[in-house]
Amino acid sequence: MNDLSSTACVFCAIASGTGDASLVYEDPLLIGFLDINPVNEGHLLIAPKSHVQDLADLPPETLAAMATLAQRLAAGLRLSGLRCEGVNLFYADGEAAGQEVFHSHLHVIPRYDGDPFQITADWDSPPSRSTLDRHADLIREALYSRS
Amino acid sequence: MNDLSSTACVFCAIASGTGDASLVYEDPLLIGFLDINPVNEGHLLIAPKSHVQDLADLPPETLAAMATLAQRLAAGLRLSGLRCEGVNLFYADGEAAGQEVFHSHLHVIPRYDGDPFQITADWDSPPSRSTLDRHADLIREALYSRS
Repeated sequence: MNDLSSTACVFCAIASGTGDASLVYEDPLLIGFLDINPVNEGHLLIAPKSHVQDLADLPPETLAAMATLAQRLAAGLRLSGLRCEGVNLFYADGEAAGQEVFHSHLHVIPRYDGDPFQITADWDSPPSRSTLDRHADLIREALYSRS
Repeated sequence: MNDLSSTACVFCAIASGTGDASLVYEDPLLIGFLDINPVNEGHLLIAPKSHVQDLADLPPETLAAMATLAQRLAAGLRLSGLRCEGVNLFYADGEAAGQEVFHSHLHVIPRYDGDPFQITADWDSPPSRSTLDRHADLIREALYSRS
């Protein structure tokens, strides 16, 4: 799905100017716009203009530009007058990770104490160091066998 | 808090080799290691070796390197044999955003269908386009007034 724009893709429509969006940023590579279903007021999305679905297919320089733009937008949010005491950056790669629009995008989420955004998981049984070391071995093997 | 290492900082201790960690990656700028309180098996953290607390104080090139390393580690997780059907990247800037270790770090979280990781918010009352446009105006003004 790399570099194939799609008439059915809402983010491709925004990038081409045919889709409705509240834009805060645009350059030849990226767009930044308000999430229509925000966690908090000012919740932004950053997307590449070219259609890429998966994190693995993003050119690293595009991902790097998305990250540094996120830093700039986070600074803007803190100065905007919208409630912003902290910021989360969030990227979902794949349906199992919560990706809902299958055009790569990075969330920039303003946060404040007591807001309705919550993350829950099962943190009751932290693994032992030997288990962590075993997982690290598996990941290192995968990293260095594929390069 | 930029570029001040601290003897009390657990990530500075890991970066200097005096703190215990299950490392998967190291270069002159960054370390990648297992979270000791993982959301799922294989949950990784990427941190700069130099002590930086806030997103705003990260050199953009360091943040860019963290993002592209996250892409490589995500690919490694998918090949590691650990359960990984999707990946979240997550960054918490500030206590209100859930930051718990005050040394900048990016989470790389393997995800699978039905895992215990959940995000909740109040998505019941999406704002109107005119509200979104007003928020976009505020953010654009903040972005362009500060540069």
